[in-house]
Amino acid sequence: MGYVKWSYDTLNRFCHDVFCRFGFTEEESKTIKDVLLTADLFGIESHGMQRMVRYHKGIEKGTIHPEAKPEIVFETPVSAVIDGHNGMGQLISAFAMEKAIEKAKSTGIGMVTVRESNHFGIAGYYAKMASDQGLLGMACTNSEAIMVPTFGRKAMLGSNPIAVAMPAEPYPFLFDCSTTVVTRGKLEMYNKMNKPLPQGWALDKDGHESTCAPEVLKNITSKQGGGIMPLGGNEEASGSHKGYGYGMLCELFSSIMSLGVTSDQCCTFKDKTGICHGFIAVDPAIFGDAEKIKMHLSEYLETLRRSPKAEGQERIYTHGEKEVYAMKERMENGIQVNDNTMVELAELCHYLKMDFGSYFKDYKLPENSTFFTGNY
Amino acid sequence: MGYVKWSYDTLNRFCHDVFCRFGFTEEESKTIKDVLLTADLFGIESHGMQRMVRYHKGIEKGTIHPEAKPEIVFETPVSAVIDGHNGMGQLISAFAMEKAIEKAKSTGIGMVTVRESNHFGIAGYYAKMASDQGLLGMACTNSEAIMVPTFGRKAMLGSNPIAVAMPAEPYPFLFDCSTTVVTRGKLEMYNKMNKPLPQGWALDKDGHESTCAPEVLKNITSKQGGGIMPLGGNEEASGSHKGYGYGMLCELFSSIMSLGVTSDQCCTFKDKTGICHGFIAVDPAIFGDAEKIKMHLSEYLETLRRSPKAEGQERIYTHGEKEVYAMKERMENGIQVNDNTMVELAELCHYLKMDFGSYFKDYKLPENSTFFTGNY
Repeated sequence: MGYVKWSYDTLNRFCHDVFCRFGFTEEESKTIKDVLLTADLFGIESHGMQRMVRYHKGIEKGTIHPEAKPEIVFETPVSAVIDGHNGMGQLISAFAMEKAIEKAKSTGIGMVTVRESNHFGIAGYYAKMASDQGLLGMACTNSEAIMVPTFGRKAMLGSNPIAVAMPAEPYPFLFDCSTTVVTRGKLEMYNKMNKPLPQGWALDKDGHESTCAPEVLKNITSKQGGGIMPLGGNEEASGSHKGYGYGMLCELFSSIMSLGVTSDQCCTFKDKTGICHGFIAVDPAIFGDAEKIKMHLSEYLETLRRSPKAEGQERIYTHGEKEVYAMKERMENGIQVNDNTMVELAELCHYLKMDFGSYFKDYKLPENSTFFTGNY
Repeated sequence: MGYVKWSYDTLNRFCHDVFCRFGFTEEESKTIKDVLLTADLFGIESHGMQRMVRYHKGIEKGTIHPEAKPEIVFETPVSAVIDGHNGMGQLISAFAMEKAIEKAKSTGIGMVTVRESNHFGIAGYYAKMASDQGLLGMACTNSEAIMVPTFGRKAMLGSNPIAVAMPAEPYPFLFDCSTTVVTRGKLEMYNKMNKPLPQGWALDKDGHESTCAPEVLKNITSKQGGGIMPLGGNEEASGSHKGYGYGMLCELFSSIMSLGVTSDQCCTFKDKTGICHGFIAVDPAIFGDAEKIKMHLSEYLETLRRSPKAEGQERIYTHGEKEVYAMKERMENGIQVNDNTMVELAELCHYLKMDFGSYFKDYKLPENSTFFTGNY
């Protein structure tokens, strides 16, 4: 599989125009493309341009309703419940996190749960919205079931990522991870490379370990059983019940508290996915001097980075550090997009009657490419 | 190593008398022994009677100050910071969680951070205090450094458990896990059994995997390097950075927000441990009908338990279920205490001038037992 690099500006202009063409306003398009391109800049390729096709197909199939506006259906000074009316996940989520931030600034804490939304991109984006304003931010989402609970053989929870960001110098702490051992995107990579999966990642339809990526992916899509292990694998000795538990925490703050659709039911409907989210913002000033707290964290992070390395290792990262370096590198050298994704973008242009060549000048689609690249 | 079983009533009477003898009031002794015995009833042997020796040694050495009273040093309607003045962890923590609950009942959410405390027993006890009152409860603590961050070779974080409890029928959801792959107690068990550690648990002083329990334990105690891996092991492919990240979340809500001692420094002082905690209580009613939310969670938990089992497995547990069964069984059949612990209890009686035989009638200490059972 080949890659091609594009400047941030090129992709920025393209994404913006795509979402405007789908009927979103200038402002809305700006938010959506910012979430997507931040993933690419952070080096989380699976959640950037590569995901355009999912939004395209979602809108085409009718599970994403571009015209829907999020509605606050319950509210207190410290909380809100939002019904997304199955609109675009990024818009609902940015709205929800802004609401949480507003409440945190007024009362100290804001917790907002969301039901009836859609895939929201990277959880870290929303957590960072809060830390950019001096607050601690948390974001989580449930999703289509891919995690098999400990001792099970059927996926019952999503990849259920949890992200937490908190201000620090010289860059914020930013943790953003799925509660499965890996994401589905990693399995898709191994599948494309035709390589066996590492031990400890996936289960076959009977609940036994499997290293066969195509088989596991086929079973997940057709809901034949099997899926991805929780963080900690599939045995209690390696902590399987812990990853499964973190997946549950994510579910509590998204689907349970919002009375929404739990992961086992997400993406089983014709006209919606039912995906739910949770957002929390906390003002550190409710614990005293926010600046001192920030410096205390900054010092601890620096102590961690400077602590002795394992033999053969050169550095210890703190969470969010890799993203800072990735962003700098990609802004300078461009963002890598694989040829499969370029084919999807060409198909998207065709669908929206946009001129592919006016954005991606001189790019030649692979000879054997087809516009219909599978089931999304 | 032999075991002996004692009724709950016997241990209850013994523990209560021990703490009264240490100078705690009736009410205080009741709280402390309830935390300890709940661990034994839940089947978490490592945190029950087996830990008596740590409190004994802590008081003897002067790192636990029995007379200290927790003090609220900062407060808002949704938050508080408590200075524990190095008192007994259980008393400070019960006080702090009660404060969080009180705030949650008034404003919807209460977040309380604690600095200058001591080992608090099982985190789940405090989370359950909230769920017993219809709230979601979270509790976390930092501790003496035993977790080696990804790519490191020196322990920089504690076992850093996070517990979350939420009301459900027929029993609450109760998640309580260290963010390391296993706790130090597990290593001690393997050491006593003279067995090699499973793969993926521990690191030697150079940061390489080790299965030698005595070596790893010795290095942890003498701070020679090495320690326990984060949940997810020591490679990014198995999610090491995720367990390390959850350990950090625990640190944020305990030592960072309270401006307390971070795990890398905990237990390095002469007159205190410096251990910090975090407690959160959330009233589900801030998201609508609390009863409906409870039923929604109960149904999802039941769906999980009923979901298809892996070949060779008979049941899928939801978090907190094992504790319910363990408690029933132990209340009926007694609580198992190992002979090493009995020796420690005998030593404790000697120290406090209590009559061992009046509690543990007819029990014969192992012939080769010594009162001085190591470095705690």
